[in-house]
Amino acid sequence: MGDKIERIICGDNLKVLEPFDNESIDLIYIDPPFFTNKHYAKIWGDKEETLQFADRWITKDKNGSGRASKDINIYSKWMKLRIDELYRILKKTGSFYLHCDYHANAHLRIMCDQIFGVKNFRSELIWSYEKPTASKKKYPRKHDTIFFYTKSKKWTFNFDAILVEFTDESKSRYNKIDENGRAYKTYRNKDGTYRIAYKPKGKPVDIFTIPFIQNNSKERLGYPTQKPEALLEKIIKASSNKGDIVLDAFCGCGTTISVAKRLGRQWIGIDVSPTACRLMVKRLNKKISIIEGLPIKESEIKELNGYEFQNWIIREMGGITGKKGADGGIDGNIGNMLVQVKKSNAGRHQLDAFVGMLALREGKKEGIFIALQFSTNFRIEVARLKQDNDITIHYFDVNDIINKKHLKILKEIIPKGEIKKYI
Amino acid sequence: MGDKIERIICGDNLKVLEPFDNESIDLIYIDPPFFTNKHYAKIWGDKEETLQFADRWITKDKNGSGRASKDINIYSKWMKLRIDELYRILKKTGSFYLHCDYHANAHLRIMCDQIFGVKNFRSELIWSYEKPTASKKKYPRKHDTIFFYTKSKKWTFNFDAILVEFTDESKSRYNKIDENGRAYKTYRNKDGTYRIAYKPKGKPVDIFTIPFIQNNSKERLGYPTQKPEALLEKIIKASSNKGDIVLDAFCGCGTTISVAKRLGRQWIGIDVSPTACRLMVKRLNKKISIIEGLPIKESEIKELNGYEFQNWIIREMGGITGKKGADGGIDGNIGNMLVQVKKSNAGRHQLDAFVGMLALREGKKEGIFIALQFSTNFRIEVARLKQDNDITIHYFDVNDIINKKHLKILKEIIPKGEIKKYI
Repeated sequence: MGDKIERIICGDNLKVLEPFDNESIDLIYIDPPFFTNKHYAKIWGDKEETLQFADRWITKDKNGSGRASKDINIYSKWMKLRIDELYRILKKTGSFYLHCDYHANAHLRIMCDQIFGVKNFRSELIWSYEKPTASKKKYPRKHDTIFFYTKSKKWTFNFDAILVEFTDESKSRYNKIDENGRAYKTYRNKDGTYRIAYKPKGKPVDIFTIPFIQNNSKERLGYPTQKPEALLEKIIKASSNKGDIVLDAFCGCGTTISVAKRLGRQWIGIDVSPTACRLMVKRLNKKISIIEGLPIKESEIKELNGYEFQNWIIREMGGITGKKGADGGIDGNIGNMLVQVKKSNAGRHQLDAFVGMLALREGKKEGIFIALQFSTNFRIEVARLKQDNDITIHYFDVNDIINKKHLKILKEIIPKGEIKKYI
Repeated sequence: MGDKIERIICGDNLKVLEPFDNESIDLIYIDPPFFTNKHYAKIWGDKEETLQFADRWITKDKNGSGRASKDINIYSKWMKLRIDELYRILKKTGSFYLHCDYHANAHLRIMCDQIFGVKNFRSELIWSYEKPTASKKKYPRKHDTIFFYTKSKKWTFNFDAILVEFTDESKSRYNKIDENGRAYKTYRNKDGTYRIAYKPKGKPVDIFTIPFIQNNSKERLGYPTQKPEALLEKIIKASSNKGDIVLDAFCGCGTTISVAKRLGRQWIGIDVSPTACRLMVKRLNKKISIIEGLPIKESEIKELNGYEFQNWIIREMGGITGKKGADGGIDGNIGNMLVQVKKSNAGRHQLDAFVGMLALREGKKEGIFIALQFSTNFRIEVARLKQDNDITIHYFDVNDIINKKHLKILKEIIPKGEIKKYI
């Protein structure tokens, strides 16, 4: 990973964002669930997603009929907690985009006016798309709303990076093409000579006309509310520079971070759905092990190469410094605590080597051992070491880590401040 | 006027709407002041307008600095009173359009959701226009919002009346023109014969792309927030049928009623500004006398022809039935009270004739006389009739009526229910 921030985090964004530093993000785009009648859970069908969203905005009917109905106030409270948190982590010079539609846009606008201040409202953007039309009882709906706020009166806006093509009509005046393929037109000067003018690009407007992703499109990933890359490209180009950190806290199938990556930005994508996160790593050509907080399967861990395995372990343990081996092992430590990591099964022989180093060379009485699995002899020897030599070896296999069994023990044995905060 | 409703009313719409019958209007469009920093009063600069709008939405700063600032709550309350009233007069099958922009659209949306019910929200329409752009600090603003509500689940919507031209690109496939000028394309059948398809029209969408009225446009009337006729044409065609009643309660320079008239609808335009109302009559090719509630000048009344003069008097008096003369006079009555109207100055001779008819033929002791002006002899004779014959003649010249001096007396002498309710 190096110094570049490229993160995919699986979890409820409210909890995920909590450890983020204040004013650390340059650009935030979110496309949260729209307060429709459709259960959001149906998008991925994950258990995690269902738990988070199902019936969350449902309240009993006020007239006591017992029928459930949507409650915009519950939705608003749920959103406000999250937008408050996003506001906190946004840089003073940062920009915030909130994608929504007619269901809740008025409520979200008033909420954001309160959070960001009316004076920091910049634009109500309209995404205009084409989609097949059914009803003839009203104007077919062909747009979403995107609110654009900044955190102060100083912000990045690359106007010239988002100039648009003129419409065919105005283009047609530039009816000559030079050897480089650029369109131009000619003027006649008073003295009879000619000069040429290259076709300029048009100024951007607050209506983005970008086609909806068709079902048969190559871009389509099977995510029903997938947004086109062209939409995010416009926003990211306008409101960030190369190297800036772009965050999407409802990242879905990863359009935002995919475009951010292509445009040379650092990126963070958060989604509650493991399925979405798995799709993201595929789309970004990353390994599944980069997903933080993912309920990953043991078999998937075993398939990782040494480097990916080390990264996954380090992240799950809250950070390990030390020497990494080509075989996926680490000789390192967490704070003052020695850690041995093996990308293999571990038996008595491996334990002897670790304890020899730990107790004899370093003079310590406590250490951590991580491996794919542990033999029975390993376990017996750990018990004996404790009883006879007062040496404590905490050992976790991959399944323990997947099931977060290590967290409680780490919190007990590692001084606060030495565990990285996302644990 | 006949039975067709064609009204221009000058006054605060809240007061003007009060006497309107419940559920009597088919289509309401309003384009109220937008809660901008600009004083609405600056639009026309009328005294009446200034009184209504200046500082209406201004409140003292909450931090006690004493600086005035806009208060959206004051604006919202002001609007709610009016939209409540418009809801009341809208037919069960009627439609309501509210034109607004980013300043207050969220607040107005939530207000209308409450008044009409969320289930009767139909569309958030976007009017997309082109206008010169200044700032490069954000996306140039190029749209307004129009909310569309109905009063029930049954409403008029003429989908096929608002089909749109396809864009150039899709049009170009229909590259042949028949003898009637209709574009078509040809298909080759399997058997080698050809069949043709005429160019269809596109389905309407919820984004209306209609140019802003340029300053040098023929349509431009000097009203800064003037809306293009094409915009109103779309709305009126979609949401009303011929003969339906269309109302605009913030009618400005009269775009709504102008289009309604052209499309064969009945129409009512209300504006607080006399200047706006005068512009409307000019635009609709009507006489100034049709403006109800207008502080009209004496000289303007004298210039009216007989028919227009009669209509003005009848309206200002709350209704007169009777015989109209070609010279602008009326022999008629209000309820049981005899009324004489002369479009001339009146002296003792005219009074004698009226009193002869009143007292001798009809056996009455009280009557009303209206004329351009009254001679001194007329006034002396009225006093004498009262003293010697117990006959009361109420007389009003044009200036009295302009200054509403007749209203108090009418209320005293005419039984309630016999004066039409707009008095």
